Parts: sequence; structure tokens; C-alpha cells
Amino acid sequence: MGLFRAEGVVYKPVQETDTASPPPPQPNQFYLTANVKAPRMAGFLVKVFVWLLESPILGGLLLYILKRNNLIHKFISYAELEDSPLYVPLHPYDSEDLKEQEIKHIDSDLSPPEKVQQAIDCLPLSSEKQPFFHRWTVLDYSKAYSSGDITPRMVAERFIAAVRESSNPPMKMSFFINYNEEDILKQATESTLRYKKGEPISVLDGVLIAVKDEIDCSPYPTTGGTKWLHKVRPCTGDACCVMRLRLCGAILVGKTNMHELGAGTSGINPHYGVARNPYDPSKITGGSSSGSAAVVAAGLCPVALGVDGGGSVRMPAALCGVVGFKPTFGRIPLSGVLPLNWTVGMVGILAATVEDALVVYAAINGPLPSQQPTVSLPKVSFPLLKSATSISAIKLAKYDAWFNDCSDDIRVCCSRAVDKLCERYGWKVVEVTIPNIEVMRLAHYLTIGSECSTSLSSYLQKINCSDQGWDARVALSVYGSFSSQEYIKAQKIRKPKVFHDLLYKE
Amino acid sequence: MGLFRAEGVVYKPVQETDTASPPPPQPNQFYLTANVKAPRMAGFLVKVFVWLLESPILGGLLLYILKRNNLIHKFISYAELEDSPLYVPLHPYDSEDLKEQEIKHIDSDLSPPEKVQQAIDCLPLSSEKQPFFHRWTVLDYSKAYSSGDITPRMVAERFIAAVRESSNPPMKMSFFINYNEEDILKQATESTLRYKKGEPISVLDGVLIAVKDEIDCSPYPTTGGTKWLHKVRPCTGDACCVMRLRLCGAILVGKTNMHELGAGTSGINPHYGVARNPYDPSKITGGSSSGSAAVVAAGLCPVALGVDGGGSVRMPAALCGVVGFKPTFGRIPLSGVLPLNWTVGMVGILAATVEDALVVYAAINGPLPSQQPTVSLPKVSFPLLKSATSISAIKLAKYDAWFNDCSDDIRVCCSRAVDKLCERYGWKVVEVTIPNIEVMRLAHYLTIGSECSTSLSSYLQKINCSDQGWDARVALSVYGSFSSQEYIKAQKIRKPKVFHDLLYKE
Repeated sequence: MGLFRAEGVVYKPVQETDTASPPPPQPNQFYLTANVKAPRMAGFLVKVFVWLLESPILGGLLLYILKRNNLIHKFISYAELEDSPLYVPLHPYDSEDLKEQEIKHIDSDLSPPEKVQQAIDCLPLSSEKQPFFHRWTVLDYSKAYSSGDITPRMVAERFIAAVRESSNPPMKMSFFINYNEEDILKQATESTLRYKKGEPISVLDGVLIAVKDEIDCSPYPTTGGTKWLHKVRPCTGDACCVMRLRLCGAILVGKTNMHELGAGTSGINPHYGVARNPYDPSKITGGSSSGSAAVVAAGLCPVALGVDGGGSVRMPAALCGVVGFKPTFGRIPLSGVLPLNWTVGMVGILAATVEDALVVYAAINGPLPSQQPTVSLPKVSFPLLKSATSISAIKLAKYDAWFNDCSDDIRVCCSRAVDKLCERYGWKVVEVTIPNIEVMRLAHYLTIGSECSTSLSSYLQKINCSDQGWDARVALSVYGSFSSQEYIKAQKIRKPKVFHDLLYKE
Repeated sequence: MGLFRAEGVVYKPVQETDTASPPPPQPNQFYLTANVKAPRMAGFLVKVFVWLLESPILGGLLLYILKRNNLIHKFISYAELEDSPLYVPLHPYDSEDLKEQEIKHIDSDLSPPEKVQQAIDCLPLSSEKQPFFHRWTVLDYSKAYSSGDITPRMVAERFIAAVRESSNPPMKMSFFINYNEEDILKQATESTLRYKKGEPISVLDGVLIAVKDEIDCSPYPTTGGTKWLHKVRPCTGDACCVMRLRLCGAILVGKTNMHELGAGTSGINPHYGVARNPYDPSKITGGSSSGSAAVVAAGLCPVALGVDGGGSVRMPAALCGVVGFKPTFGRIPLSGVLPLNWTVGMVGILAATVEDALVVYAAINGPLPSQQPTVSLPKVSFPLLKSATSISAIKLAKYDAWFNDCSDDIRVCCSRAVDKLCERYGWKVVEVTIPNIEVMRLAHYLTIGSECSTSLSSYLQKINCSDQGWDARVALSVYGSFSSQEYIKAQKIRKPKVFHDLLYKE
């Protein structure tokens, strides 16, 4: 039994959580570099590894060793945790302590087009066009459609031609898992008619928007990047967020490529090809929302939807040089989104500009119509962007040890970006410590894995292993190895004090 | 992989949960007899079985087979469940639909002695003494103390003599894990003085109350029925419920025996002996609150505290012929109670009469002083027992298929009891169906096991297996085998609709 004995760390319960200001730096907080220990392998070796992982006896031993080497036992499984678990990230929004300054609240009773108009009203009046910025924004399209210079039908036709060209040799960029030319042209024709009558629904009318294949969108199946999921879980209509975009007149152009089941960050899909980075087709896009980031970077759509459980929007956005926005938990309904990680995942937005992300966010935010809003669900807030000076109060929390834990070129580049924001807008950097950041990474991984295997376990019994990529098979083996006590302990690491306050305080 | 492939059942989400009235019988609901498949063994075979279970490789295979044979895979692991999980049993108390009739609400701001007085005021004015009832009730003690016929000191001395006699041969009834004669006499002397001055604190002043060794009570360690838990988790003071009894003047006479870690229902403890049933010392008491039921049945104390996660108060109460009361979740703080199963366990009361259970419940109910009461936490309600006719509206929900799933003698006996209640008080029996009752049993077992192993896993790494009884070792091996997805699915089976309503409706 010696091999199977290990000591866990001891965590003291959170005594007080000051949610109003970022935590001050704690010099004695020990920073732990991410400790990812997994064998690096390719080709035949991967297949042997997967075969071992999936074998009932040896697999258990191998998974035990993987978990121990990655410090899951030390930091989670055998850790002493007095805090009560927090299963859903509910924060005390709109409490008195958190009164935000210079924020405009949008009424959630408004229709999506009305919300979009309110967001437009928040934008700076004189949008100074950057000379080096070549992509068209939502407002560029809207103005050109309204002036009659171009029509949504023309844009749709050029889009279809470009997708055809890019998906064939020599480019072979697999941006989409499914797109239907007929359906796109039909939507574009309808939008063109609305502009001809002078009755566009909103600034999003006729704007092309792509949707990650993790979100339901008629008339397409929702594959989740797999070859089988859409067969056992048929798509029966638009997800709530997609329906809202449709209500604004947006043209939904198809389902973008993604890392299989969102279970990885390279964005390389074994069934539907590689999206490839538009800046350099020999480079990856990052993932899992690979196709959504790539279509925006390529200029095919100004905006695309992704889903972000652990960086799946933000990482490909960073690698493709576009804006990636993951809204706060609960602000966009997850109805019609594959429940691969329902307490950490959120519909996210990939866009060419922050303003475009804001406009689309306005369209899709707010609770489901059937859910009455309550104090515990957030109101939606938009920053008033009327002038650069009005957002001078913004403070950037920076955890130095973590920020600098990267290669030199990245550190220099990111530091310059931060400096530029501070110089140009007068923003301030506040040094903070994020305690136990590596432990939180492990707890997050455990949570994602447990939720993913919960959602899929009934299906996985029915399909053949060979229907899945090697990557997904490794992930699912690891996900399935998490015990119930590891899951509960991971939830104990999720800021329990805040939840406790919500339940027991007025 | 053929051996490891299984199909799960499909559950449809709860569309509507009518909490106001019991569910009507559904003739097409298939009743499933409890399907407990575990090897029946004793002596050397048990040791071999435990050794196999605890071995890392064969143990995994054995646990897999046990889970499959007990239908955990079919009903939980591979089941399709669309409902969202419910992690804590929060019910919509005091909603308009649930307005209870003829109920007196006790203000939770009152002190424990004041609450006790309010409960006393609810009791029938003329308590007709049953001629065949030989045990003393709380009010019997209180009256005798007040009249000066006897003193708490006299009762304490007789109690100590009786415990000494019963714990030695030939009786060898191991009621207590710890009791301190000096501490008991000190409390009794103080209470006697209060009566002499004519200043008893409440009717509980001088009344002997025993506490299950799962609840903190000074000056005793809290062993949880183990040889090691109190060493790694020192008891630092009274649990909230114990402190409240002390504030009422009750004499806390020691820590009663229990099934090791509450992980079984026989009440046989390998370290502290067998409590034995006072009606027949060759029979068990049931468990896990074995000692608490036995001391009440033996007439040593009118009342004792237990903890009930899955029948641990109600089962020994039934086997020992006393009243066993498990209050609704949340009505008694769990502060100072071992967190062996914190979302299903509740402090329970073992008493000679329903009235005594009510008086003690009045003393210990209500939220922690630091917790402000909110709408989501229950107000405490007592039935007005002023006359038998005022409670004529009581309806007993009876699930026939389940009620009758027992041996003939038990069925006949229980049916007679129900008939008697209906005849004497005019109560009504309503036939109901409890859908998926066997599935709920499995989900409950999974929840208890996961919470228990979460609480203990950090300690278990530090102790020797040989410090634990065979029974506890089997339980902990099984508990540790539950995966995170099995746990989450078990929570999905816990009436999610009610929780959803709480979150999203006013």
C-alpha cells in the first residue's frame, strides 16, 4: 500500500472575501508554476497509450500515476478542506459594495434589436477609423447596406466563394464543419429585401455570423466536433443565443470547426480537418473555438460565437489576433448549447473589434424568457464608452509571478500592450496575488472533466471507441477517472464564502 | 470491452412537481424491489474480501462488478438524465401553496428555554397517563424535581449505578463510548441547586440527555465510533444543538455508542462493544445511533440525540420501540456534527414519547446565531396538539407496493398500527406512488458515500487500515469507488425542479 499513500495539503477556510477590490499582493504567497506532467508522444505510441488507458486494469494504474504526477492527489484528493462546496459560480451581483461607476444597465425586458440599439447608443459618436485596420465592422456593413452601396446578398455570395476557395487545395483551411449555401443565400435575400424597403431590423441585419458547432443552429446538426454526437442528440432548433441573433436579422452562415468535444486547445480536429491560422496556415488557431476565431481573423465574418469553458474562446482569439470575450457566468442562457461543462462554460464572442463584441453581446444577453429575473441573477451592464476620459478609472489587476511565467518574447509583447493602455487611457495597474492559482487550475480541470463525462457517459456506452479521435479518447479516459470526492473537493476550492453569504445573508 | 459495456436507463425531466399534495398513485409505475447484491460472509472470508477490495488492481475490478450487480451502472452511471443537479435539499418552505393549517410558528429569535416553554404550551392540558407506560417523561422529571420528591443529583447517581451495572457482565451492554461520572454529578449538583432556589431554567433542567458520539459535546472526544478520528479531529467545544440543551439546564450524560462512522445499520461496533437491545440483549439495537436508542429504551434517559443520514435514528428507534424523529433538512444547525453526510444527515431525536421529542426539538431548532434568517431557510413549525380533534386533518401517504415489501408479521403489525391511528384520531390514508424509489435509494447511497469519503480522505491517508473495523473498511472501499459523474447523476435524481423554481421564481 506504500505506493498508494500520499499526503494532502491543508487549506484554511476563507474568513473574509473582499469582492469589492482586487486582493492585495501577498509576498509570502508561494507561486507554483503549472505542473503538467503528461507523456509527449505521437503516432503509434499514442495508440498504445490510449489502448493502455482504456484497458480496465492497467488503465486504472496508469491514471493513478498520471493524477499523482500532476499533483492532483496532493492538492485535491487528499487535501483537507473545511469550506463548504460551491457548485455553481453565483456571485453577489449588484450588491451595494459592488456599485459600479459609469455603467449603463440595459433592461432585460427589451427585445434583442432594442438591446442592440441601446449598445449602439453607448458607442463613441465619432468612431475614428484606424488607417491600418482593414476588417469591416458591424457598423461598416450596416452603413454600406443602408446606403445601398452593397447588399447582404452580394456579401453572402462573396462569402460562399471565399469559403469554397479556402477549403480547397492549396489552402485547405477547414473553417466549417457544416454550411449550407442555399440557406445562407435565402437569409441574405430576405435581409436585402428589408434594406430595400428601408426596414432593417437592427444594425446586425444582414451581418454574417458564424456559430461554433457546440451551439444548436438550424438547419445544421450539432456535432461538437465529433462524428457521432449529432446522431444520438439531434438538434431540434436554434439555441437561445442564436435565435436572438436571428431576431436581429443576422445571417447565420454555418457551424465552425472546433476541437473534438472541446477537449483540447490545439483546435486540430481529426474528423473535419484543421482550421489553420489565417495569419500563417502552417500554424494552429488554438481552440477549442478554432473555426470561429479563424473566420473572424480571415475577415469572412465580423463576428462569430464560441463557447469558453477554460479559455476556448480567449485562447484562439489570442492566437488569431481577434477580440475574444467570455461573459460572466449566467449572463447568456446555455439553452441549446451542448452541456459539456455547464458550470464553467459560457457562450463567448469572437469579433474584430471590442465594439462589435459589445453589439453582439447586447443581442444575446439576458435570462431565458421563461425565467423571471430575480435578485440572484445579474442585470446586464455595459460600460459607457462615450469618451476615453470617462473610462479613466479602469484598474488592471496584474499578478506578476503569473504574468511573467512565459517565454521572453511573449512577456515583452504583453508588457508593452499593458503599458500602451496605461499611457493612452490613463488606466492603472494594480499588483495582486491570486492565491493557489495552480490549485484552481487543477480544480477547474476536475470540474470540466467531471461535467463532460457526466453529459456523455450514457452516449459513450453506445458508440464505438474508434468513432473518436485519439485526443478525445485520452481526455475522456482521464475525465472518467475522477472520483466523487475529488469532484466535491474541487467545488470546495471554488470560493465558498461568497456562496455562503448569498444563502444566509440578506 | 464487452464486459465493460452496459446500457443505462433514460429519465425524462420533471415537468411539474406538485409539492402541495402527495403524488397520486400511478398504476403503471413499475415497483422495483430493493436489489442489494453483496456477498454474505463472516470471519476469515470477510478479511480476504477486504484485502481484495483494498488491493489497487483487483479491488477496482471487484468494485466494478459490485456496482454493476447492484444496478448502479444501469440506473445511475450510464443513465440519461436531463434534469440539472440538486446538491442541497432546499424546499420552498412557507410558500403560499404550502400554507399549513393549525400550525404554531415559533419565533427563531427566542432563547432555547423560551422555545421549550412555547412547545410546552402546545401540549395537551390534561396529559392522560397511559397505565401501561412505565418510562418517565421530561414533564414527569420536571414535576418531581419541582415538588422536591427527587433531585437531579439523586437521578444522576442512580443513572451512574445503572450504567455501571449494565456495562459489566452478565449484561455487557455497551451503551456509551465515553461518560464521565464526575462531570455528570457536577451538572446534577448545579441543577439541584437551581431547583432548591426555585429557579429551574426550563422543564429540561436536570433532565438527563445522552448524545451520539458523532456530535461534539464537552468534555468528551468525538470518536464517530472509530479508534482514530478524535486524534486527528479534536473536539473543541459543544455542537450548537448540545450547547442549546445545556442552556436549558439539561444534564449531558455522555457519548453513546454507534456503528463505526455511521457506515452500517446493525449498530455493532468492533472497538466499543455492542449496545444490545434492552428488550432482548441477544438482539441488535439497529444503527447507526445504536446507543442513543438503547439508553432511551432502557429508561436511562428520557431523550437522546442521534444523527440520521439514511435511517440512522429511525431504524434503531424502530428496533428499540422508542420514538425516532429526523427533522427536515436545515432545521437544526450541523455545526459541531461530524460532516459524514452533510446534505442528507440531520441531528435527530430519540425519545420515549412524541411530546418529549417535541420539547427537545423546540430547544435545538433554528439557524445558527450568526446566520440571519432568510426566506429560503425554514421557519420552525409545531403542530397544535391541544386536542385530538384538532389534528383530525392529518393524511398519511402510503405507497402500498413498498409498504407491503416485507415479511408477513411486519406487514400485519404495521397495518394494524395504521388502522389504529385512523380509527382513534380519524386520520386518513392516501394511496400514493413514489416513482423510482429504488433508484432514489441508490442515489442516496452514492451521495452518502461520496460525502463520507470526501470528509475522511485526507485523514485516511494518515492512519493504518488496521485501526478500522472490517465493516468500515468495506464501506470506505465502496464509497471511494464512486466517480464524479456518478455523484453528479445522483444529484440529478434529487428533485431538481424544486431547486430550479427556488432560483428562478419569485
